[in-house]
Amino acid sequence: MADCVFCDIAAGRAGACLVLDEEETVAFLDRRPLFPGHVLVVTRAHHATLADLPAARVGPLFAAVQRVAVAVTAAMDADGTFVAMNNGVSQSVAHLHVHVVPRRRGDGLRGFFWPRSRYADDEEMAEVATRIAAAVPPRGASGAGRPVRGP
Amino acid sequence: MADCVFCDIAAGRAGACLVLDEEETVAFLDRRPLFPGHVLVVTRAHHATLADLPAARVGPLFAAVQRVAVAVTAAMDADGTFVAMNNGVSQSVAHLHVHVVPRRRGDGLRGFFWPRSRYADDEEMAEVATRIAAAVPPRGASGAGRPVRGP
Repeated sequence: MADCVFCDIAAGRAGACLVLDEEETVAFLDRRPLFPGHVLVVTRAHHATLADLPAARVGPLFAAVQRVAVAVTAAMDADGTFVAMNNGVSQSVAHLHVHVVPRRRGDGLRGFFWPRSRYADDEEMAEVATRIAAAVPPRGASGAGRPVRGP
Repeated sequence: MADCVFCDIAAGRAGACLVLDEEETVAFLDRRPLFPGHVLVVTRAHHATLADLPAARVGPLFAAVQRVAVAVTAAMDADGTFVAMNNGVSQSVAHLHVHVVPRRRGDGLRGFFWPRSRYADDEEMAEVATRIAAAVPPRGASGAGRPVRGP
């Protein structure tokens, strides 16, 4: 896709410090890491978000993410990893990318999951669950799974 | 596994607001959501982290995550999703779980990816990439992919 920096990296038109370069998947260092060893795993083909990824490509992408997470942990002597993706909001490049960040106990990366809120009551919570459950697409049918939304 | 709240939920021994209940995968509302509609997607079987998940189970888990992300977006009328997992560090329950959080533009969830750092220079960055690339396990071989680490 024109004007997509991750497509440029995948095609070799832009430089990056690659850590994985395979048929469907490319992984490289984030230039502004949370911690050194912070990797971005992307599909070689352009897909904007997880919902846009054809269902058959989800497994291969996350198989690569798993292998990168193992590698980041070993290479950086980390205690664990933070694996995350922003879809549509807070997504700086509109080509899906999975962050794999090495974590160490006491590394100071905290608070990103706070503040938490609460549901008003069990009824409200059950109502939300029912609404989401009803919206789950059938298995394998997601394809380009982005739901159609009004303006 | 004994004393694992997510095993208890998967087995029906503990209650939860389920949104997906399938052979390999269970998804339910986080009781302390970042935003209403915050879902946790877990494997029915007990695996501690992404690295511990047999390679053959990675695809099915994230296929479910994709479908849940589509459902959360539609049901909560969201603009996007934040999909994340903590492996080993900041992981409150030692049974792997993927957070799917609805996002809206301007929802105030920001800053969790900051502050970013920088590599000292291109050489340091290239050296880190080389180290990680050398540690990537072969495809499909990850099985229980946790690297062996010293004490």
